[in-house]
Amino acid sequence: MLNILFSAKPTAWEEYRDHLTGAFEAASLNANLSRDHDPATVDYIIFVPNGPVTDFAPYTKTKAVMSLWAGVETVVSNQTLTQPLLRMVDPGLTNGMVEWVVGHTMRHHLGMDDHIHCQDGVWRDTVYPPFAAQRPVTILGIGALGAACGQALVQLGFPVTGWSRSPKTVEGITCLSGKDELKEALTDASMVILLLPNTPQTRNILNAETLDLLADGAFVINPGRGPLINDDALLSALASGKVRHATLDVFHVEPLPAEHPYWAHPNVTVTPHIASTTRPDSAAKVIVQQILRGEAGEPFLHAVDRQAGY
Amino acid sequence: MLNILFSAKPTAWEEYRDHLTGAFEAASLNANLSRDHDPATVDYIIFVPNGPVTDFAPYTKTKAVMSLWAGVETVVSNQTLTQPLLRMVDPGLTNGMVEWVVGHTMRHHLGMDDHIHCQDGVWRDTVYPPFAAQRPVTILGIGALGAACGQALVQLGFPVTGWSRSPKTVEGITCLSGKDELKEALTDASMVILLLPNTPQTRNILNAETLDLLADGAFVINPGRGPLINDDALLSALASGKVRHATLDVFHVEPLPAEHPYWAHPNVTVTPHIASTTRPDSAAKVIVQQILRGEAGEPFLHAVDRQAGY
Repeated sequence: MLNILFSAKPTAWEEYRDHLTGAFEAASLNANLSRDHDPATVDYIIFVPNGPVTDFAPYTKTKAVMSLWAGVETVVSNQTLTQPLLRMVDPGLTNGMVEWVVGHTMRHHLGMDDHIHCQDGVWRDTVYPPFAAQRPVTILGIGALGAACGQALVQLGFPVTGWSRSPKTVEGITCLSGKDELKEALTDASMVILLLPNTPQTRNILNAETLDLLADGAFVINPGRGPLINDDALLSALASGKVRHATLDVFHVEPLPAEHPYWAHPNVTVTPHIASTTRPDSAAKVIVQQILRGEAGEPFLHAVDRQAGY
Repeated sequence: MLNILFSAKPTAWEEYRDHLTGAFEAASLNANLSRDHDPATVDYIIFVPNGPVTDFAPYTKTKAVMSLWAGVETVVSNQTLTQPLLRMVDPGLTNGMVEWVVGHTMRHHLGMDDHIHCQDGVWRDTVYPPFAAQRPVTILGIGALGAACGQALVQLGFPVTGWSRSPKTVEGITCLSGKDELKEALTDASMVILLLPNTPQTRNILNAETLDLLADGAFVINPGRGPLINDDALLSALASGKVRHATLDVFHVEPLPAEHPYWAHPNVTVTPHIASTTRPDSAAKVIVQQILRGEAGEPFLHAVDRQAGY
């Protein structure tokens, strides 16, 4: 019998309990899932940063801490956490992210807002927008999420450049990496999508200097993490027209305060951190897969590199 | 030397002239392109319904009338037209249509308007929308345009059913056909996309009876032809909530009159016949291809079936 601790808010427990129990049963995993185990007896922790566990020291027997979130920036530097920390790579989260990114990319690409806002009875001749093939998209961060979004956009005809800290290869995407190639990745991009992890190296990666590299009238889409953007620099770029519109799902402070200039800005769309989320049904299967690997002595998937921060 | 008559509005002449001349030269076609040829000397007519030619009788030597538009409903019943009539199947038009259809499908699928309209400083918890896989899309009309749109939506995970007058096979799409299978195609569809030609058989195909088959809260997207929809029936379906939103690009009368209830309806988006258009650069190559076939004695592509009306 494995003791599995679920450390998250009560609402998450309601969402996840049945899916986890079902997934354990389907895999014939003899597991005792609870929100209340004696720490010294816990084999695995299913973890969300806003849950009860903050001190991992008493969990002496625990083989892994499995995050339900893709982003681990709030726990990665916890000094009491010496157990392996696993990021969630959930096909459901990836799927939702692809849909959201494709939707908002097409919205800006087609200039849909002009029609959505302007139903005034005037039939306007329109200059046809360029085809996707003429609109270069750059994705900062081509991990599981960025790569999937990029490939969906390639299918629709967009030329996609991806940038990441370390070199990667993703079919159909021009992959650049490292500090030296960031400038090349952003130069003349007309759509920038942010899907990097939040680390000391990625904070404010979109700043006055890097925004200036974009094509005039570029679009910025951020479903990644708020701190990737220097807000003052983005507001300046919106004021100058360098950036035509920003659709932002994540922010330095969430919920975004009602008085933040993004809310009232005509060229900013705020969405309340809803681009995508871990889905309990598919995530439960990932959790089971990780536990089975752990019990079989195989290496865990998506183990966090503490040095890199993700 | 072939005499090629360009019969369309002067604005179209400005758009097309250089592209056509360039395409003729690239194919070493010895062509005299003009808006003013002696009718008896004309080999081919490049045709738009709103241009000068309305009587085809004097064009005794003309081998084909090549429409620049995909829809030929306004010329197909012209009794003076005895020459072969060719529909335009332009990769540029198809490409634009795929982008527009994917964009508006994703917009409705993700419920984007809620965010675009509602930037009031309130951070709202959201119920995540179903995945594309849970949202059945039905496309009425799976010719060149419908098939391409359907396959792009399949790539994004939507289950797509296509319906056409005569049986067709399109990879990835469940293909139904004929009057008997229309009911099956529309039953429980949560997104309906209209890409049928306008013929006596397709007029008002979306009416009170067929709208009633859809899933409650379905979306209707019409980039095809206005007369495919019975407007009163659609307004009733919007009032009852059977249809949640309609995005309409084409209308019984265009421009859509300013007093038409669609303009002011909160759940209707009117776009001014801009979903897609023939693109001069790619269409010029199609024209050349047709002329080369005609000169080589090969059958033309996309010849209109006068009986079927398209």
